[in-house]
Amino acid sequence: MAGTDKTKNQVLGPAPVAVLVNPQLGENIGTAARAMANFGIHELRLMDPRDGWPNEKALTSSSGANWIIENATVHETLDDALKDVNYVYATTARPRGMIKEVITPEQAGHDMRARVARGERVAILFGRERTGLTNDEISMADVIVTAPVNPAFASINIAQAVLLMGYEWYKDQAESLGQKTPELPALEGPGLQTPDTRPATKEELYGFFDHIERELDIAGFFKTGDKKPGMMRNIRNLFGRAELTEQEVRSLRGIVSSLTRAHERRKESREQQKKEHEEG
Amino acid sequence: MAGTDKTKNQVLGPAPVAVLVNPQLGENIGTAARAMANFGIHELRLMDPRDGWPNEKALTSSSGANWIIENATVHETLDDALKDVNYVYATTARPRGMIKEVITPEQAGHDMRARVARGERVAILFGRERTGLTNDEISMADVIVTAPVNPAFASINIAQAVLLMGYEWYKDQAESLGQKTPELPALEGPGLQTPDTRPATKEELYGFFDHIERELDIAGFFKTGDKKPGMMRNIRNLFGRAELTEQEVRSLRGIVSSLTRAHERRKESREQQKKEHEEG
Repeated sequence: MAGTDKTKNQVLGPAPVAVLVNPQLGENIGTAARAMANFGIHELRLMDPRDGWPNEKALTSSSGANWIIENATVHETLDDALKDVNYVYATTARPRGMIKEVITPEQAGHDMRARVARGERVAILFGRERTGLTNDEISMADVIVTAPVNPAFASINIAQAVLLMGYEWYKDQAESLGQKTPELPALEGPGLQTPDTRPATKEELYGFFDHIERELDIAGFFKTGDKKPGMMRNIRNLFGRAELTEQEVRSLRGIVSSLTRAHERRKESREQQKKEHEEG
Repeated sequence: MAGTDKTKNQVLGPAPVAVLVNPQLGENIGTAARAMANFGIHELRLMDPRDGWPNEKALTSSSGANWIIENATVHETLDDALKDVNYVYATTARPRGMIKEVITPEQAGHDMRARVARGERVAILFGRERTGLTNDEISMADVIVTAPVNPAFASINIAQAVLLMGYEWYKDQAESLGQKTPELPALEGPGLQTPDTRPATKEELYGFFDHIERELDIAGFFKTGDKKPGMMRNIRNLFGRAELTEQEVRSLRGIVSSLTRAHERRKESREQQKKEHEEG
């Protein structure tokens, strides 16, 4: 999924804060920053990063999300990292036997959008690479977020947890703006991108059906007359499903016209080859 | 989100096939496999991996998803990688100006579940690290999947694209098991009613494309050689959208064969009429 548009401004509207708790590897901080950038999350807080800060590897691993790394703040304690925050989501892979509500990333996406929209500051906690968040850290959150994953293989790395949460945050925002995907024209249900053309009119479509029917008649395609209505219905169905453009209808008519000449050409070329063979 | 439960069995039910097209780095293949394992996707196909196969780095980067790496298959062409597949999703970060339906990962999640439930084989294509999928490769898919991302920072790495698609696949399954939302509606959109037949495999579909291309070549349809790839791509796109059944592919091949004979018949019938006229 390559394809950043450099002409677009970074999206820097209000968004959740990402808090990495005691991250071990600079690479993971960098790839987490990249995932944040993908979904318009720009504020990164690091609680007690193992290898100190700044961290060159974090910068080189961020694939250009420099502004996130450069503006990241470091906090000695989780209290400090969360002090201006109104509502906290703790990500965990498995239930912790705690009396705390557990929601999905999708539910968290809705919830974060609603809270941010009414001016709340929200933060998402991501735990250590191997051991996640401690029970004490989780107890500081308002809610637990657990993604549905294969229980036999539930380990998700930090950047991927950030990605899922960012994705659900951004998706919900895009949806609430009435967009399916921000880049694309609003689509009702499955829709078509038609760059330089337009959907065919029924008149154009039926013109094509008449054309192909006429040629198939000549070709003897409908062996018996009583099968023809059903066969034509099937043909109309299959082309009807494709939601053809005007351009495509013209192409199809071109194809039908060409094919009716194909046999002739083949014969000519066979004769030509034969002639050349005889002459050679 | 650490926390794999080793006592759980791997989930190996029917699932989409992940196809990495010309992946460059073993690390990315490994991390993609890990993301697959997180969401119960177990079948990995590699089209032309740059550094050959097997690849030690892929194994060490898979964080224990060995069975996926060990069972991965290598394919020289995309045709070969897709030949037993009924429906193909191409992941891209940006619109390609192609006449092909564009859906979100979430919509793809619903759609994949519905298709897999009725016995279809589905595959998801993931492109090269820097350049993604070519237009030709995309034209072989049935639908494009584009995640809503920050347009100013849209580049997502392969493993993360795999993660998002896997997440939506698995999430939808979890939901359909009654965990969150009640019954999902039976596939909205273009779903197929195929009483006596089944969706065509890609091998059958590509066989038809080869057939029509051969005949159009003979017919001189592609006036200049440089226009041919684009024209064939449009043809593949429009037939791809129709989600043809095996039956319909056979009908279309019958139509092409018939049309190539139409001209000849027309000539014969004209001569016949002339003869009758003269005799009469």
